[in-house]
Amino acid sequence: MNAPVSNDLAITRLSTWEEDFDARLSALLAWESVSDKAVQQSVDEIVTAVREQGDAALLEYTRRFDRVEATDMGELTLGKERLESAFAGLPDQQRDALAQAAERIREYHQRQKPESWQYTEADGTVLGQKVTPIDRAGIYVPGGKAAYPSSVLMNALPAHVAGVREIVMVVPAPGGVVSELVLAAAHLAGVERVYTVGGAQAVAAMAYGTETLPKVDKIVGPGNIFVATAKRAVFGQVGIDMIAGPSEILVVSDGQTDPEWLAMDLFSQAEHDQDAQAILVSWDEAHLDEVQSAMERLLPTLEREPIARVSLVERGALIACRDQKEAMELVNRIAPEHLELSVADPEALLPEVRHAGAIFMGRYTAEALGDYCAGPNHVLPTSGTARFSSPLGVYDFQKRSSIIQCSPEGASVLGKTASVLARGESLTAHARSAEYRIK
Amino acid sequence: MNAPVSNDLAITRLSTWEEDFDARLSALLAWESVSDKAVQQSVDEIVTAVREQGDAALLEYTRRFDRVEATDMGELTLGKERLESAFAGLPDQQRDALAQAAERIREYHQRQKPESWQYTEADGTVLGQKVTPIDRAGIYVPGGKAAYPSSVLMNALPAHVAGVREIVMVVPAPGGVVSELVLAAAHLAGVERVYTVGGAQAVAAMAYGTETLPKVDKIVGPGNIFVATAKRAVFGQVGIDMIAGPSEILVVSDGQTDPEWLAMDLFSQAEHDQDAQAILVSWDEAHLDEVQSAMERLLPTLEREPIARVSLVERGALIACRDQKEAMELVNRIAPEHLELSVADPEALLPEVRHAGAIFMGRYTAEALGDYCAGPNHVLPTSGTARFSSPLGVYDFQKRSSIIQCSPEGASVLGKTASVLARGESLTAHARSAEYRIK
Repeated sequence: MNAPVSNDLAITRLSTWEEDFDARLSALLAWESVSDKAVQQSVDEIVTAVREQGDAALLEYTRRFDRVEATDMGELTLGKERLESAFAGLPDQQRDALAQAAERIREYHQRQKPESWQYTEADGTVLGQKVTPIDRAGIYVPGGKAAYPSSVLMNALPAHVAGVREIVMVVPAPGGVVSELVLAAAHLAGVERVYTVGGAQAVAAMAYGTETLPKVDKIVGPGNIFVATAKRAVFGQVGIDMIAGPSEILVVSDGQTDPEWLAMDLFSQAEHDQDAQAILVSWDEAHLDEVQSAMERLLPTLEREPIARVSLVERGALIACRDQKEAMELVNRIAPEHLELSVADPEALLPEVRHAGAIFMGRYTAEALGDYCAGPNHVLPTSGTARFSSPLGVYDFQKRSSIIQCSPEGASVLGKTASVLARGESLTAHARSAEYRIK
Repeated sequence: MNAPVSNDLAITRLSTWEEDFDARLSALLAWESVSDKAVQQSVDEIVTAVREQGDAALLEYTRRFDRVEATDMGELTLGKERLESAFAGLPDQQRDALAQAAERIREYHQRQKPESWQYTEADGTVLGQKVTPIDRAGIYVPGGKAAYPSSVLMNALPAHVAGVREIVMVVPAPGGVVSELVLAAAHLAGVERVYTVGGAQAVAAMAYGTETLPKVDKIVGPGNIFVATAKRAVFGQVGIDMIAGPSEILVVSDGQTDPEWLAMDLFSQAEHDQDAQAILVSWDEAHLDEVQSAMERLLPTLEREPIARVSLVERGALIACRDQKEAMELVNRIAPEHLELSVADPEALLPEVRHAGAIFMGRYTAEALGDYCAGPNHVLPTSGTARFSSPLGVYDFQKRSSIIQCSPEGASVLGKTASVLARGESLTAHARSAEYRIK
């Protein structure tokens, strides 16, 4: 006789009216990446070695960590033809899906391009801002089991749209294996060359350059703790994107969306990794019960059920609130990476949303669509950083230069003001430099 | 008998055609901020104490480091009335100059506001990006001798123009002394409240909040090594601006600008601090000699001569190049914080400039005008980081949220693509979440 199977899911249930709600929510949301001294030291050594010994160190670490025997970086370099043939060799369905996604992402990002501008004042003085792309971008792509072609598109396409002259990519190939889908995506995204190296050594090589691998101006893309630590270490030498925390979703439901749809939306976040966070908020408590039942029913059918279950039990929550207004206060307090407004009239709620990485509006807009092919970027601020940061975009691969061109008249007028203020700060060479231009 | 007075200035002279030019230029430009273990440890302790003990720790450190005895944060809090009266109490000339500068800075930054946008596809799917200001900004202002009201305007006004709800400021008041000019600038820039605290303790208070000092979303503003280290430490918890290196200027002259003007322009950079860097490039060697003579003549007349001399000898240079084209290659290699194009036709050179924080065009546009009142921001990327970063701007106090609203038809079409790609990445809950929306 078999023991009865229990599908119970011990997911946290909270209600905003409970006395300890604030404290419990804070505990649930708390996330700080641990800065392990051993990792830090190891990364410091690797960065120094690659900076000093270039290709030799890069090859040595690749032998050691990725078990790839190469004596020359040429063996670890894939050119445009190789990327193109990876694309050509894909099964039709995958090739088409990838091309469609790339096209939509490109189209969306083209609308993000900031323009240079300037204006002329009455006395002929010109002020403005000039927008230019960075010269060279480096994309880090994780290798091995978690090969994500969508991540290649999302990181490289904004750089391409920005007009970056050269985009290079690194992807480790443990045991010599590299994903054809990843190379195909690199082809679509305008990547010039791929180096099959990874880890802190690849980040160091992109930051400082080696004999083979060119120094880049900005490094973007996700990676493990060694990659993240290396990115922090080289920040300043090169630009970097945000260091991402675990992925999260906050779903607001009015109780009318199919509970199975919502269960699967929550799972699609929870299946990423055990630290991922999936939260559902509703002012309809019976609906929360229905979603929990659906989750209990569907969870055992997931391929990645063990990961999703840990994520849901450890970091997930179903939260009952009083009304729509309270739900929106929660949204702004949490500042989620992904926000699903699974309600009848999402436009009515939109003005209330102050902080969120991406907003998925209405019952049909599953977050997964945004991960792959809706168009907007899937690299989004996590862990509440949407309070002050933005999705990865074209603007991350461009920078601005101020333009100031004073007419002789303008310089004379401004010189007087500058002189007073500079002397107020005891910076008299500043004052005298301005005063030379006073008529 | 007196020894002959020598005004010789041992500034580095380089020529691009010398064999060791590249190496010598690289050595001159090299700058890495030292991360002192003792500073790091001290900052860690301070941040932890303020985070755990709030006001009590903040008051204790303020007693210890600023010699200010206060038992209540109320004594260290200055409200709107106090700021306004500081402004009203200034001498007329300073008050007018400050107000004029604020007005011009505000006007320029208003042109920087990014707009929300969206577009609707044929099937009714809406995509876009929503721009929102951050809720609360914290401005760090150095106190004591180096009280810079211009820095208050440049850091706080972009936040104000961005629509930030609340701007708070911290400024240490060693021995209880605070600059009236700084408070007056805070009034003009829309600062809500000033706390007379500083150092790592003030940064920690703004990042985590105390009983009195509210937690902010982003911290900007310059500070000493303790402040910079604390900003790095709290990054992620809050947003921060760039950690600035020493200030620099690169002047390109066609040989026709008055050598004394150029000498003073270089001094206005060098007088900042001993690590500041002032470089002049020209294809007219005789002109370089004339500028050097002017520098030797004028340097002894500077109030801050000792600082400027060290800066010029240690980090300054006069560089002879072959022609205009080579000068522009140097510009892009150096990626200077401030670039002065002191030439007859600066517009002709502008398209060649790829990397610079701010570009000062023509003989009349002294860099000092930009420091105070031209309009553009004086917080600029240093140490070559103009390759990948921008002046402080309104965009630094706003962030973007992606908007995705799929119509039922759109969700069905996108669902098919997402399903293929998600299955290619073995993320089957993603696939199933998308598939639910396929008709």
